[in-house]
Order: sequence, then C-alpha cells, then structure tokens
Amino acid sequence: MSNFNVLLFEDFETLDALGPVEIIGNLSLFADERYDVEFYSEGGEITESSQGVKVDTQPISQIKETDILLIPGGSGVRREIDNPDMISHLKELAAEAGFVLTVCTGSVLLAKTGLLKDLKATSNKMVFDWVVEQDRDVQWVPEARWVKDGKFYTSSGVTAGMDMTLAFVRDNLGIKVAEEIADYIEYVWNKDSSVDPFYRGP
Amino acid sequence: MSNFNVLLFEDFETLDALGPVEIIGNLSLFADERYDVEFYSEGGEITESSQGVKVDTQPISQIKETDILLIPGGSGVRREIDNPDMISHLKELAAEAGFVLTVCTGSVLLAKTGLLKDLKATSNKMVFDWVVEQDRDVQWVPEARWVKDGKFYTSSGVTAGMDMTLAFVRDNLGIKVAEEIADYIEYVWNKDSSVDPFYRGP
Repeated sequence: MSNFNVLLFEDFETLDALGPVEIIGNLSLFADERYDVEFYSEGGEITESSQGVKVDTQPISQIKETDILLIPGGSGVRREIDNPDMISHLKELAAEAGFVLTVCTGSVLLAKTGLLKDLKATSNKMVFDWVVEQDRDVQWVPEARWVKDGKFYTSSGVTAGMDMTLAFVRDNLGIKVAEEIADYIEYVWNKDSSVDPFYRGP
Repeated sequence: MSNFNVLLFEDFETLDALGPVEIIGNLSLFADERYDVEFYSEGGEITESSQGVKVDTQPISQIKETDILLIPGGSGVRREIDNPDMISHLKELAAEAGFVLTVCTGSVLLAKTGLLKDLKATSNKMVFDWVVEQDRDVQWVPEARWVKDGKFYTSSGVTAGMDMTLAFVRDNLGIKVAEEIADYIEYVWNKDSSVDPFYRGP
C-alpha cells in the first residue's frame, strides 16, 4: 500500500487539494496497489477552505512516512509562508517524501523550504509575478500546465493540478491506468504539460 | 445573499460535490451578490467521500431555506435510493429550492422523489443503463454533458458537474462572470451542453 498525504491549512483552495484526491482516491479501482488518502494540518483540527469546505484532519506530527505528499495553494499560502513552524514541518516531510506534488501557489510554500533551489517549477498564472518575487532561486517556468523536476511535480492554477496528477499516474503506473481514471471521472485530460491555455505572455 | 446548500451522504463522490463548490464558492469574487456555501447530511455528522475526504456537515433539519441545492452522486447513491427518510427530506428540500443541481448519479437520487417525472435529465455515462432502469418516467438524455429542464440542472459524471455549474452561473449572472471564474480556476470550460465526449453510443 502507498500513502498519499495531503497537507491542509486554513484558506486552502478547495479544488487544489480535492481535484488530485479525486484521481488518487480512485486509483485502487484501476491499479494493483492500494492508495491510502489521509489529510493532515499543523494542529489536526477541522480545516476550512476559502470556499467553505470543512475537512477533518490529523496532526502533522502523526505522519509516519510519506510516499506522495500533496500541497495545495490558496489565499492561506500568503499567511503560511511566514509561519516558520509550518515551513520547518513541510521541509522535513517534503525531503523524506517519495514524490511531492504542488498545485497553484502550493509551489511557493514548497519553495520556502529551499528544496526547489535551482530546480524548474511553475505556479498560478494570475499571480505569477508575485510567485517569482517570493524566491528567485527557483527556475520558475511561466508557460507550462505543470512541470516535473526530479521528484517534484508543480502545477499551474487549480484544475491544472488534475492534469498534473493524471500525468503523475501515467509516469508511475502507465498511460492505461491514467486514461481509465480520466474516463471514469469524465475528465478531458490535457496530457501535454507544454500546452498552457492560461499563459499570460511575457 | 444567496445560499448554496450541498447535501452529502456517506460515500459521495468527492468532485461531484466539490467541483461545483469550487465555482460557487468563488462567485463572490466576481458577482455583486454573496453566496454562502453550507454542507448538510441527514444526521449532521462528519461525512466521508469514497475517496476518503471527511467533510463536516450540519443536520438537514437545520436548513431554513434553499436558493440552490446541490446533490452529488457516488457509490452511496445505491444505498440512499432505498432510504425513505433521505428521499422524503430530499423531496421537500428540492421542491422548495429555487434551483436544483445534480452531478453524476445524484440525478437518480433526485428522480426517486418523483420531481423529475416527464422531465429531461442526464447522468453518469458509465452506468447509464442502470440509471434508466431506476426510473423510466424520466426522459433520460444519453448524449449530453448536462441538461436543464425548468429549475433542474442534471449533469453527466464527475467533472461534467463543473461545466454545468459554470453554465448555471452564465444563465443567472451572465457569460462574463462565468468566464472570469473559469479563468480564475484555470479550467477549460466545455460551454456546449450537447458536446459530450463520454457518450457511449446507442
């Protein structure tokens, strides 16, 4: 069994977290392995998204190991990048994880750990200038639906996280499983990371 | 202020509920009116989706009025269609609501109230034969991304609910607001309800 640990914080963006969860949470229907989806936050409280979804979580301290770590973005990122405890926990988790997936401004939170230094990454296209300002040591890619660099997958805004997660499934379990899941959730998957309909020009 | 009440039950499909919530929950950023998203279940417990998301809910009995009601689908529908209390609560809620939106097999649950009798509706394409068998008094439409009939919007599987919800926004608040939200969440919106990439043929 593999585990898929989702790190939440107040004011996360709903679909940044739960789009990828829709895909990974259905993997066991099509793959041989079972995938266990668990939700964590710093304190282990019920954690509310900017859109009013209250999700029950466990405390970060209870994470034993992480095969895949998901970090959503959202307006709460602007608070959490100045939370040294969160960055410290995240650095430890992300360093140990087999893979780290971020959606939207989740990549900015990850960048604050230093783990993206000199690596390629992307983020939300509406606030891209702000993203770049947060860490100039990352090779931010302005035109990409998602970017893979080593064990780090970073995606553009919100629904781009679903295209990225399906690509992650393809890379690890093959195209057939990824296509079966896309079909199951009736999702028109953008399979090409270089096709970015929301790129805003130079 | 308008309210958007989401009815959950154990083993709902994550994105059926939370795709539309991502859109309606961000409406206040672009529309003049505020939209309040609330989650309900029969008993008001923390309610878990088939993909492991535990959402805090209030009891149905606490709903005062409903401008927009959302009914997700999911494997739990097969249990809830035989739950007379649920069908009875739902019938009352849906009859009084200004609009009712269903995603995937949520339309089968709604059909069990009798409110879709002689109306056009659609549902998940992978289990369409089962859907039709559940209620032959509904005019089930096999090839449609979503269907609007009066105050009832019913969509195909999972992500089709996002296309439908954006169309609902367009119908009520105009194309500009709908396009602004689609852009904000970097979603390639299928605007044409007759374009159904997951239709499985006659």
